[in-house]
Order: sequence, then structure tokens, then C-alpha cells
Amino acid sequence: MSNKDTESAEDRLIARYFKPLATHPGALGLIDDAAVLAPPAGCDLVFKTDGVIGGVHFFVDDPPDTVAKKVLRMNLSDLAAKGAKPLGFLLALALPQGIGAAWLEPFARGLGEDAELFGCPLLGGDTDHTPGPISVSVAAFGAVPHGKMVRRVGAKPGDRVVVTGTIGDSALGLLLRRDPAAAGRWGLDRDQQDHLHGRYLVPQPRNAVAEALRAHASAAMDVSDGLAGDLAKLCRASHVSAEIECARVPLSEATRAVLAKEPALIETIITGGDDYEVLATVPPGKVEALRRQAAVAGVDVTEIGIVRAGEGDARFLGADGKPLALAHPSFSHF
Amino acid sequence: MSNKDTESAEDRLIARYFKPLATHPGALGLIDDAAVLAPPAGCDLVFKTDGVIGGVHFFVDDPPDTVAKKVLRMNLSDLAAKGAKPLGFLLALALPQGIGAAWLEPFARGLGEDAELFGCPLLGGDTDHTPGPISVSVAAFGAVPHGKMVRRVGAKPGDRVVVTGTIGDSALGLLLRRDPAAAGRWGLDRDQQDHLHGRYLVPQPRNAVAEALRAHASAAMDVSDGLAGDLAKLCRASHVSAEIECARVPLSEATRAVLAKEPALIETIITGGDDYEVLATVPPGKVEALRRQAAVAGVDVTEIGIVRAGEGDARFLGADGKPLALAHPSFSHF
Repeated sequence: MSNKDTESAEDRLIARYFKPLATHPGALGLIDDAAVLAPPAGCDLVFKTDGVIGGVHFFVDDPPDTVAKKVLRMNLSDLAAKGAKPLGFLLALALPQGIGAAWLEPFARGLGEDAELFGCPLLGGDTDHTPGPISVSVAAFGAVPHGKMVRRVGAKPGDRVVVTGTIGDSALGLLLRRDPAAAGRWGLDRDQQDHLHGRYLVPQPRNAVAEALRAHASAAMDVSDGLAGDLAKLCRASHVSAEIECARVPLSEATRAVLAKEPALIETIITGGDDYEVLATVPPGKVEALRRQAAVAGVDVTEIGIVRAGEGDARFLGADGKPLALAHPSFSHF
Repeated sequence: MSNKDTESAEDRLIARYFKPLATHPGALGLIDDAAVLAPPAGCDLVFKTDGVIGGVHFFVDDPPDTVAKKVLRMNLSDLAAKGAKPLGFLLALALPQGIGAAWLEPFARGLGEDAELFGCPLLGGDTDHTPGPISVSVAAFGAVPHGKMVRRVGAKPGDRVVVTGTIGDSALGLLLRRDPAAAGRWGLDRDQQDHLHGRYLVPQPRNAVAEALRAHASAAMDVSDGLAGDLAKLCRASHVSAEIECARVPLSEATRAVLAKEPALIETIITGGDDYEVLATVPPGKVEALRRQAAVAGVDVTEIGIVRAGEGDARFLGADGKPLALAHPSFSHF
């Protein structure tokens, strides 16, 4: 048998598109059964898996490089919220017949760009054909100093509730993607539309604040299923409640413009998914230190409310001081 | 919002079927964003991902507990061949609408049984609905003493080629599954049929020999895409060739019975996939020690050939001493 005879189509696809990304020595050039890595001394390992399915989590005509970036960043966002530094990731890819270079080349390029940007190398993977839609699953690993992972458990009454960045852009970007005419109703210029749609396509995980969260947060999680539902999850895990003032939730200029035209969209903003910001609780004496340390890393941190005694209630107070009644507090593709 | 309102269908599915499996403290009861684990001191981490898709890698009416066991064991088999001890795994599950308790309950039960049996706990996961077929992907992690992972690179001319267990059972089990009438042509009794079909449904990963492989093997990999194609991969990685005597390839009693009736099936036996045995090269002076140590662990190790100088040729010699011409040396679902 010649080498060529024993190289499968899968081997060739991996060699062409993914081996160039496997620059970490532990990936072994993707020609072994497994990857190998010496963990950083004195650290715990943090494990996360999350994925996307074509037609469910992304539009099949989304640019393939943005699909790659989004799925990796979804996992990086969880590592960030846990205070972990990325170590690397595995990729499981299921491809329908007919997906070829036109999709795979930009997909692999986008993946490689983000692996480099976030210092999270491709370590290995699995590629299959499927009669179903494109499916991309990532398993990402990070490291935190032993015992220092930031958990959902740990919020205490009196802690302040903070979030990074801005909330709701991605949910509005998705509405725009589905109904481009909304841009006219909302009076958005091209830059504002691009901002919202861009935040939906390629989130900005807050890995730059991982260390600051370890130093200051009592609990944290990433906001992926909507701020309201995710805060309720954190509250349940910590056996507390929380009270948020909607007016303090940080919004981008584009989102503020939309909200001025359609005030009812406040519900979409605080319950829509795909924000990939960090939600954290912080003892009152540490908020300013966290805010300053995050600012140095280029990330805004905004105080939006307070932790109360209770059992999992997350109340969002409107301008009248009364809690909003949310029809669908948590976003779910499921 | 009450707790119930903010618990999604995905949360409830995880709580019902998978939380009972998440007994490892690092899984955090599956209610955090990520799992956390202190790696064993002085060890490297070994990472692997492999998965199955309904209608591609398994029959949709296969018993769900066997689907769970097979996908976990596929990954465990790679850890075994690398000399690694399992630490845990992540599960990514994509479910078509209509998959409910009748499938999930036995799936989760089988997964839990094997997590326990192989000491490889469920650490976390991701569950989605899909318009496509059922898809199950596992990312498994193991540990080896620093620098001691057994690689595909390392085989030297003069080393002996060995395999664990028996080869070809699973490929014949798949033929039987597709053509039950073959049992009659092959003169197989019920036990023989059950043996072959059982080896296809639920492989037996050789994690019991991981330590012996680290001590004695110069190179190793698991046999998942057929002995011939996988040996060629090992030879290419090590820049050697290999010569195997077909008559020495270890066969079960059922497979010997089939081969007696249809000698041409030798090709299916050595090129069919899903064996999940370990293929290793071993310096001649260490073969007996490996064989004995493996026997103590309950695993047969059989010498089947020798490593030669060369560049990736894997020759299988027939009874006449001449190399078999294999039409499809490597099995691929891709």
C-alpha cells in the first residue's frame, strides 16, 4: 500500500485545513490519537464544552470565519467568567456532504486567528460527515490557581451585581438579521446596524478580566442565555436574590437608540441571549478595585444592582421602581 | 420570577438524566459554567475527542445504553493506547425533537455504568436540539507521568508488532447486523452471533494495559479504522515499515469459524473498523514482559509481526508468504 492509499478523506481534510493551526507542540501535528499538555504547576483545570448547529444557533449563510470565532469565543467566555486562563481546545466538526473549501478555508482561518488572539491553541479534533446540518462543538480547557475558580456559588447579601461591556446588542442584532426593515423603524445608521449585527456574529469574551474576577468577585458566570435568566441561575446557586435597576444596565449607543424608539424592547435586551459578557457579584468594598483593574484591561464594568437575602429571585426594577413582569426570562435554543 | 419559570427545558433534561451521573465533586452538580479538577501531580494531561452520529456510526434502533457505552469507550480506547489513566469527560449531545425518556433514560444509565466501571466521571456537557440525527460527542481527558505518553512515533526497525485481544469481530458483527442471513451461511450458533454483534455494539477498551504499555511499548495507537490502515498510520508517523503474518493475527473462535467458510473475509477482518484494541510496537526484549503484565490484567497480547526500515508500508503476508493486495486498507465513515 502506498501512503496515499491509506490516507482517508478525513485525514486529507485535517491535513489541509486544521494541521496548519496545530502549532502547539502538544497537538503533535494532529497525527497522533490524542494531544498532550503539561498543566501549569499549582493550578486547577477548568473544562467547558459548548457548540453550535447550523439553522439552530447560526444562519447557514453566516460567514464561516464568524461561525468559527463565535463557537470558540462562547467557550472562552465561560473560561473568562470562571477566572481561568485558556490552555487549548478540541474541535468536533460534523459536515454535510457538499461542504468544501469555500466553507472550510474561511472557517479554519477564523478559528486560527482567534486561537492566536486568545492564546488558546487547537489541540485535536474529530471530523465526520453528517446527513444533518453543520455542527461545531468545542471543548475548551483553562487553568486557575488551585482552589481559585470563580463559581456561581458565593454571592452574599449586600454584594453588588456588576456586568462587563454592554447588554442586549446581540439580541437586537439577531432581530435586525431576521427583519432588516427594523433598522428603518429604529432610525439606525449603518454603523449602528453593523455594531449590533457584529456583536451577534462575533461576541467579545472578557478573558482580559479573568484575573480581576479571581481577585474581587464573590461569584460570576457568563451571560449567554440572557441577563435576567442567568442572574436567576446565579442567585439559585448562591441561595440569594438580587435586585437590578434596569436604568443602570449598560447599553451601547445603538441599543439606547433602539430603546428610545421601542421602550418595550427592554425585555428583549435583558432576556435575549448571546451577550457573552461577565455577570459577577462583588463585595461592596471591592467594586471600585475590580472596576479599575478591568478598565486597565480595556473592559468596562458597571454596577447594576445588589444581592439580597432570598432564594433565587432576580428582580429587574423599572423607572417606577416596580419589578418588570418578564414573559420569557431566559433565552433558550433548546 | 419563580425558579420554575427560569429553568429551561435543557436545564430540566440535564437535572433529570445527567445530574445523577455527575457525582465527581469537580462536576459541581452540573450547575456551574464549567467543571474544575486538580490534575495529578507530576503528570501530563492527555486530550481526546471522538463522537458518533445516528445513521452514520450507529443504527438509530441500537439500544441507547450501548450507544452511550460505545462512544465513551471509543475515547477510553485512545487513552488506553496512549498509556493514560482516565480523569473524566465532557458530553456534547444533539437531540432531534421526539427523543425523550425512552431513549435518554437508558442512554444515561449506560453512560453512568461505564463512567463508574472505567473510573472516568462525567464532568460537564452541552445539550441541544437538532433538526439532524442524534449526535453524541465525548471529549475525554487522562493523565500520564510527565513525558511518558506513548506516541505513534517511536517504532524502530526490529521492534515486534503486537495487538491486544482479537481483531475483526466488530467488522463481522456489523456484517451480521446488516445481513442476519449470513449467520446461516457461516454456520454460527447463537453464542457466536452474540459475540460478534456484541463486540460491534460495545467494544472493550484496553485501559487495563495502559501502565504496561508505558513500561514496554516504543509506539502505540488504538485500532479503530482497521488494523491495516492504522498500522500504516503508525508506520508513517514513525518513518518505518512493518510486516505482519496474517496467520498470527489473533481471532476469536467465532471469527475463525467465519473465516473457515469464507476465506476472502480476511480482508474485512484486517481492514474493518471498530476493533478498539491496542496496536503497539515493542523492542524484542520487552515483548514477554508486556505479554505477562497484560495477562495479569486479563488482556491477551499477541505478537503478529515485525517493524522494518521503510517509509510507511504495512504489508500483510498471506499463507503463501506474499503480501495481500488490499482494496480498501482503511475503514472510514467519512
